[in-house]
Amino acid sequence: MSGLLRPDEGEPVIVVNGDGKSPVVLVCEHAGKVIPRSLGSLGLSDEELSRHIAWDIGAEAVSRLVAKALDAPLLVQRYSRLVYDCNRPPESPDAMPVMSETTRIPGNDNLTPENRLARISEIYRPFHDRVARLLDHRAARGISSLFVTIHSFTPVYKGARRLLDLGVLHDRDTRLADKLLAAFGRLKDVVVKRNEPYGPEDGVCHTLNLHAQPRGLAYAMLEIRNDLIAQDAGQKLWAERLAEVLGALSLPQPRRAAS
Amino acid sequence: MSGLLRPDEGEPVIVVNGDGKSPVVLVCEHAGKVIPRSLGSLGLSDEELSRHIAWDIGAEAVSRLVAKALDAPLLVQRYSRLVYDCNRPPESPDAMPVMSETTRIPGNDNLTPENRLARISEIYRPFHDRVARLLDHRAARGISSLFVTIHSFTPVYKGARRLLDLGVLHDRDTRLADKLLAAFGRLKDVVVKRNEPYGPEDGVCHTLNLHAQPRGLAYAMLEIRNDLIAQDAGQKLWAERLAEVLGALSLPQPRRAAS
Repeated sequence: MSGLLRPDEGEPVIVVNGDGKSPVVLVCEHAGKVIPRSLGSLGLSDEELSRHIAWDIGAEAVSRLVAKALDAPLLVQRYSRLVYDCNRPPESPDAMPVMSETTRIPGNDNLTPENRLARISEIYRPFHDRVARLLDHRAARGISSLFVTIHSFTPVYKGARRLLDLGVLHDRDTRLADKLLAAFGRLKDVVVKRNEPYGPEDGVCHTLNLHAQPRGLAYAMLEIRNDLIAQDAGQKLWAERLAEVLGALSLPQPRRAAS
Repeated sequence: MSGLLRPDEGEPVIVVNGDGKSPVVLVCEHAGKVIPRSLGSLGLSDEELSRHIAWDIGAEAVSRLVAKALDAPLLVQRYSRLVYDCNRPPESPDAMPVMSETTRIPGNDNLTPENRLARISEIYRPFHDRVARLLDHRAARGISSLFVTIHSFTPVYKGARRLLDLGVLHDRDTRLADKLLAAFGRLKDVVVKRNEPYGPEDGVCHTLNLHAQPRGLAYAMLEIRNDLIAQDAGQKLWAERLAEVLGALSLPQPRRAAS
């Protein structure tokens, strides 16, 4: 296997507040925009590498504030999703994208099987192993979990304006998403929609389907419009909203049929 | 963590023919009946520990013959499902069962969180990590996979006779199961049924939902009545049937919507 990460570059995952007592477990797959040094800049400019194509702007900051407010564990993925998109399986062409929105990613052209395996084995697999182990530890202690992933989306995609502030996404298990849609729907300043701007048909429910669904845990994916959380004030406001809604949830039992 | 396995007891997983060229990947979660020495006999007699409650009689032998015939990779789990049932998530009460059919399992009474975590961390997690890594390696090389788990069931359960030879089980993705049901249905000596003697509502699709569904791979779980494969001749006959049907399958593309 050709090495991707150098010894000083660190693990893909940061565990924040791993022993947190909240039923909520937070995951932020697109938190970081780090490019491993062995990949240079992927052929992109600094400006391109700071756009939404490289990471979910504001998502980590909001997630950390919510984790602190709720005393919830949070798992943060540090590397750019252009290197490996941890919300996609290794089988997906979107895992190491050649195009992102309208931008060609030269460093992802013509990857060899060894290049692909290095990214899978050094980023995707250790990140998801760590998520699994955290849930294992909670399960061993009889602690159930509400599994929530936090993302952000660009207000304009391929020229089209997206007319929502918050998306609540889910796949077949709607228990938690239904509650969140009802709760956010009561906030009169927030435009919230179900399975927008993406839905399960776009392949964005991978992390939910990998961890929460097979365990029978209730889950949802939150997508916040990134211009609302690009700065401190918006991050604080949205973290307060999320913490209030998530903190008020009652905990459904794991669903046996879904396991 | 209190240790479960001693250094000489070996990993839970045996990889057979890991570089096999078949599109089919075989998994046998209930292959073995080994009890870690630290658990004694779980309070059961040798006779109870050789019954179907401890393992899937005949499943490993059939799986190995099919793997050889197809040149398919096979992942075998060595420890008894009474220690940890690798087809159940850590959240499930069936993962470390206190009752199996009508037999009480004294060694599973009053497990501490440390006891549970040791079984999860030393059996369940390394087994499924190994399955995931095998699929990762195939994905990196652009090799898609048909994911098939092989089980056996007892002909009489809680006093009721089960009137089938073979069950083809699936959850939401029916692509492979439909093809297998059609193919086995053409064999006039075989009584085959869909989602019997168990189905997804019984929580038996965990391994499928953990590995195949989130990757968009087509999958099925095969349940063979164990009196048909308890001896060499039956194992050989059923392995030939399975190899013929599985070897004739064409390979659907991974389903993006399912990922």
